[in-house]
This record gives sequence, structure tokens and C-alpha cells, in this order.
Amino acid sequence: MEKGSLLYTGKAKNVYTTDQTGILWVEYTNQATALNGKRKEQITNKGQLNSAISDLLFKYLTQQGIVNHYVEQISPVVQLVKQVTILPIEVVVRNYAAGHFVTKYNAPEMKHLVPSVHEFYFKDDALDDPFMNDEQIMALDIATEAELVTMRSEANRVNKLLSDIFKKIGITLIDFKLEFGYTAEQQLILADELSPDNMRLIDDVTGDSLDKDVFRKNLGDVTVGYQIVLDRLQKLFTEK
Amino acid sequence: MEKGSLLYTGKAKNVYTTDQTGILWVEYTNQATALNGKRKEQITNKGQLNSAISDLLFKYLTQQGIVNHYVEQISPVVQLVKQVTILPIEVVVRNYAAGHFVTKYNAPEMKHLVPSVHEFYFKDDALDDPFMNDEQIMALDIATEAELVTMRSEANRVNKLLSDIFKKIGITLIDFKLEFGYTAEQQLILADELSPDNMRLIDDVTGDSLDKDVFRKNLGDVTVGYQIVLDRLQKLFTEK
Repeated sequence: MEKGSLLYTGKAKNVYTTDQTGILWVEYTNQATALNGKRKEQITNKGQLNSAISDLLFKYLTQQGIVNHYVEQISPVVQLVKQVTILPIEVVVRNYAAGHFVTKYNAPEMKHLVPSVHEFYFKDDALDDPFMNDEQIMALDIATEAELVTMRSEANRVNKLLSDIFKKIGITLIDFKLEFGYTAEQQLILADELSPDNMRLIDDVTGDSLDKDVFRKNLGDVTVGYQIVLDRLQKLFTEK
Repeated sequence: MEKGSLLYTGKAKNVYTTDQTGILWVEYTNQATALNGKRKEQITNKGQLNSAISDLLFKYLTQQGIVNHYVEQISPVVQLVKQVTILPIEVVVRNYAAGHFVTKYNAPEMKHLVPSVHEFYFKDDALDDPFMNDEQIMALDIATEAELVTMRSEANRVNKLLSDIFKKIGITLIDFKLEFGYTAEQQLILADELSPDNMRLIDDVTGDSLDKDVFRKNLGDVTVGYQIVLDRLQKLFTEK
């Protein structure tokens, strides 16, 4: 597999074409951003940790029947994925109140949310990724009802699977963000990454954050928590 | 019917108890506010116009089977209504893109919205009335799923009825806001007022705004449009 030209630079990864049609080359970087990109830092080892965690979680979801874009890891920071056309919608799933959900709605911190909350954000930098409801999204032709149904239902399945797996390793999945995209065969599937950059994870014993909140809140070395998540996932999947 | 003590002062009306249990006294005032109450003005005759328009529209909705809080008008600016416990949710219905829907989502001005968009806002001054989706509202115990279903379905019926009646008098109903409340018998019914303070109305021939946008945008005397709306409604209902 040969790396081709740069397609896209994200907050924490760079995406390239490859010499194989329909397959992309994803390089996880050490960059961390907060405040909508206004704060940027390089954090040694973060790319490698995210790549390893995302690798394990995508393999697990694939085993459990969640169709997704993941192919394989070919170096500590490089993964191959199926090329998809990403829908301009971020799907956020919340099991407990945290972050801006607390401040925006005056929700009690860590309130258990029943039902789990699904939120759709329109990916548009100029508009600052506004939160939208289903009818708004449909009326403005950003996505169809069928697409919203698929994303909500897949996000729900992913939530159950990830919550279960994290529970087994003493971690609570607070919330997370997913993205979806269309394959060449017009199937809408799970894409993007699955890492503590896009999730909130709390250690059930210590109560410590094991995710990017450590960076957002300047609580210390973010990779300490990422390493704990990786070690526990590796142990769990090796034991199986 | 005797007027009792002041219960509540709104942006454009004052609500009092009466000597009859379960019946409130609503006085429409001439006050107009914009920018979340930061701009305030007294506009001669506005209270009377809103009261007269709201009277006609509530009577029409009652005839058409929409259960609501309205009882009767007893002076040019005073109405009697059934006392209800208002749910802390504003329901906004949009048929065409206008106002902050245009700026927030970069929607084309006056785009016909299919389906019509229903939005729920949590009435909370300290939080600046945040926009929420169904699952957020349920998870935070602000309203139940059954209440949201009732409000959306009633709002939809009201939208069809009001759009029809305005169409007959050469006016397009762009969007409007509703509130709902519980009666003593625990029935959730339509409440609040139905006036150009809470709707966007466009004259089909001239394209002029016949609503509070004239005040918000400083386009002149807002009561000119309100008077047109009232005259045409009165003519329609008299002819019937």
C-alpha cells in the first residue's frame, strides 16, 4: 500500500489517498486542540494511543455487527479505512450530563440521562456547528429522515456496545461523538475515529477523567488517562 | 366579574386573578420589547389590536375543535381565560425561513420549509431560553414524551388552521410561537395569545411585514400592519 496525496487535515489526524481506489491512509497526529481550535498543543504519544484505542474499538464493533469504515492498522499511527463521503452531521450521544450540556441547560453535573440523549450538530465552521433538531435538518436538506433514523439507531447500538465494554474495564462512558459517511455503494456507515479525543470516560474507582477533558481543563498529562484506557482494553481483549 | 390581584407581568400583558376560581383576567398593554427586553417602547393602540386579533383567532380555533384557555373579551384590552399551569416550553412553528432561523443556519430567506419545522425552547431567563430537542427535554424532566407529542400535534393542527385562514385574507403565516398549560382537570391545552406579537405575517401582494418585525427592524409604525390583519380578519368572519 502506497501513501498518496493529502486529502484533508483534521484536528488530530491527516488523511491521504492511497494507490488503492476506495482506501484512505489516516495518520494520527499528536496535536490537541481546544476552544474550537484556538488553543493548540503537541502531546507526545497521543497519536499512537488514539490510533491503538480506535483500532481495538473498531475491531470490537465490527465483530458485533456494526458496519463501519475501518480496515486495519499498518503502523503505530497509520490506519487504512474505506473512503466514504462524510455527512455534514456530528452525532453526539450523552449518557450522563457533562461539559456544555451542564452549563447550557443547567443540568446537574453527571446526572444520569434517561433516555440517552442524541444530538445532531450541523458541521459548518462558518456557523460554528449549530445544534439542530430533526425537522430543521430535513427542511434545510442537510439530511433525510431515513439518514437521521439510521444514524440515531446505529449510534444507539454503538452506545450499548461501548458502554458495556467500558463497564467491564471499570470505566463509565459519559458521552461521545460519531460521524457517518456513504460508501461508493451508497451505504451509510460509521466512520471517523473512536478515541478519548471524542469521548468522555470516567474511572469508576478514582473518578478521574481518562479523556480530553484533562487537556481542556488543564488537569495534567492527558496521555496518562489514554494509556490506562488502552492498557485495560488490551488486557480485556487478550483475555477473551 | 371582579379583577383581583396581579399574578404576572409579561412583555405585553398583565395577568390578574378574578373573583371566580379558575378564571384569570388578562390585560393587553401597549408595551413592545425587542432584543430580549433590552429595548422597550409604548405603542398607542397595540394592546387593543392584539386583544381583538387574539379574540378572533381563539374563537376560530375553538370552533374548529382546538381546546384552549380562551373564555371571552370583556373590554377592548381585557380578556378572561381559564387558569392553566403553563409548561416551561415555547413551541415555535416555522413554515418559511425568517429571523434568527436564517442567520443561525444560513437558510435562504423565506425558503419554504418542508416539513414545517417545530422547535421547543426551554423557558428559563437565566439560561436565555435555550433551544432543545425532545430527548434533552425528557432526560432533564422538563416535559414528558406524551406532552411533547401533544404539543407537536396540536401545534400542527393550529398551523394548518391559521395558515388556511390567513391565506384566505391574502396573508402568509411565516412562523409563530405557542404556549401550552395544564387545566385543573390535568388537560394540556393551548394557552397564551395569538397575535402579530408572536407571529410573522407577510402581505401576499405587497410583501410587507404585518407583524412585530416592523418594530424589531425599525421599519415604521407597527400598528399599521396589525390594523390590516384585524380589518381583514373581521371582514372574513363577518362575511361567513
